[in-house]
Amino acid sequence: MAGDTVLLSATIALSARGRGRTAPNPNVGCIVLDAAGRVAGRGWTQPGGRPHAEAMALAQAGDRARGGTAYVSLEPCAHDSVRGPCCASLLVGSGVARVVVALTDPDPRTNGEGVARLRAAGIAVTVGMLEAQARAAMAGFLTRQRSRRPFVTLKLATSLDGCIALPDGSSQWITGEAARAHAHVERARHELILIGRGTLAHDRPRLDVRLPGLADRSPVRCVLSRSGAAPEGWLAVERPSDIASLPGDHLLIEGGAQTAAAFLTEDLVDRLLLYRAPILIGRGMASLADIGLIDLADAHERWRLTDERTLAPDRLEVYERMRAG
Amino acid sequence: MAGDTVLLSATIALSARGRGRTAPNPNVGCIVLDAAGRVAGRGWTQPGGRPHAEAMALAQAGDRARGGTAYVSLEPCAHDSVRGPCCASLLVGSGVARVVVALTDPDPRTNGEGVARLRAAGIAVTVGMLEAQARAAMAGFLTRQRSRRPFVTLKLATSLDGCIALPDGSSQWITGEAARAHAHVERARHELILIGRGTLAHDRPRLDVRLPGLADRSPVRCVLSRSGAAPEGWLAVERPSDIASLPGDHLLIEGGAQTAAAFLTEDLVDRLLLYRAPILIGRGMASLADIGLIDLADAHERWRLTDERTLAPDRLEVYERMRAG
Repeated sequence: MAGDTVLLSATIALSARGRGRTAPNPNVGCIVLDAAGRVAGRGWTQPGGRPHAEAMALAQAGDRARGGTAYVSLEPCAHDSVRGPCCASLLVGSGVARVVVALTDPDPRTNGEGVARLRAAGIAVTVGMLEAQARAAMAGFLTRQRSRRPFVTLKLATSLDGCIALPDGSSQWITGEAARAHAHVERARHELILIGRGTLAHDRPRLDVRLPGLADRSPVRCVLSRSGAAPEGWLAVERPSDIASLPGDHLLIEGGAQTAAAFLTEDLVDRLLLYRAPILIGRGMASLADIGLIDLADAHERWRLTDERTLAPDRLEVYERMRAG
Repeated sequence: MAGDTVLLSATIALSARGRGRTAPNPNVGCIVLDAAGRVAGRGWTQPGGRPHAEAMALAQAGDRARGGTAYVSLEPCAHDSVRGPCCASLLVGSGVARVVVALTDPDPRTNGEGVARLRAAGIAVTVGMLEAQARAAMAGFLTRQRSRRPFVTLKLATSLDGCIALPDGSSQWITGEAARAHAHVERARHELILIGRGTLAHDRPRLDVRLPGLADRSPVRCVLSRSGAAPEGWLAVERPSDIASLPGDHLLIEGGAQTAAAFLTEDLVDRLLLYRAPILIGRGMASLADIGLIDLADAHERWRLTDERTLAPDRLEVYERMRAG
């Protein structure tokens, strides 16, 4: 139907509400229409991973789901658990006539099985619409499924000439209030935040979310430290690849140049948040240390601009790592 | 009239055709309407500075100018010369009933006198529309009038992390074909191009305009060299402030980091052309050497983004120096 794209897009937008709060479960979105095409229920995976989006939306819809349509950003799960029936069963039981799915669930316990169960119950199923949008919204879960590690975002705040500080280390402030507030919203969308040992020793940053109403969304603090030493309440990561064992599917790296370079060298950065102030610094501290680049040709076709905006007087650009498959 | 803005904007766009080719004269644009409001003539200052825009447009219009309206991006000159009557006299003689002027001419020989002559002849004159747009189009002439030096554009082509080359100096290629072609169009709009002694020795760049049909628009090559030494056909500049004596009102600086910094330190850069490729280099060569910045607060409120565009896969940002008055 012509309206499928709009409704599925709204469903994926709903899914983003759970970003950074549902691991190890995916942050899914669900919208249920009644038989007349009116919205009867909306749901998204709740903090901690339950209830699932479908359960929330179907509970809202109640009997109105009968003969209606459910939109889901991810294939409904097909594995019943001690905590209740799986979402495929819930959908079958609700009496919906049709289900529109953005993305197949790569989890081996579901992978196609959710759709198969729906079809076996006589429900019409459409799969594979708006896949790219759904992938972006659930990047944390998908990265964990595919690469067994969190989705990694590297934040850089620089001058136009790429410096993160003056030679004496002073960096307060390069970017303005709007950019800093945006960076705090980004923190709220991550379970984990990481800095290097040098930044920890030098700045002792709080790394919390200093926005009204979002203080409880501060991510768990981690430090990259070869010795494994970390302040109380912090987690230590001895090598970049050790992030695989961190609890959470979204990791934000906030500094400094050595730490950023360590993750880039191992190709463990999926997304760049590049905040740039309209200033020139000159001989300052560079944003990145050595990332092992030898031939300029190897630097190309790795990053794609996916978002940009003005955060006056600064600019934000978001780049994502292009990966095969 | 409501159409004044559109017509004056088109007039200013015409003026840009002469940019980089009319010094020491301003690059002016002129559109003449007949009494019925139809375009009867279009003109822009021709290479070398003559004919002036008004002479060209009025010659096209002929008798159709009578009772019509003339749009000019700059106040018509009021100083007759051996080469012919001034533009104010030409406009009076043409019989136009009305003249719309974007900007008053700061040249002391005209400064208000052109408008006064028109009004004395009974012509209705409007002055001061679209001033900012006109200033941008005639920045070279205006900078020469005000600061007795060319308008200076600094071009930088960098990675996302602000590097202009790998540690070994290799920089071919950071930006792609579209960005390089755009940079050649920029060369064609400048009378003068300048590099540092190091870049000259290292790269021996041709600095010409390698675009079909524009080869004759290559700027005069200059080198910043304390010894005053320059290759045959090149001009030498011993200190940044010496650009005041260069022939031409638009100077493009193309490298390297020391030369860029030398001009920035003396606040002699009016415009930044920032071409950025979606690549990361890491420990590379920085785009700028020391520019004398000690306090971060002093770096702010100097640069304003005035244009941006995608030159796939790269991005161009244009920043202009905000100056008082």
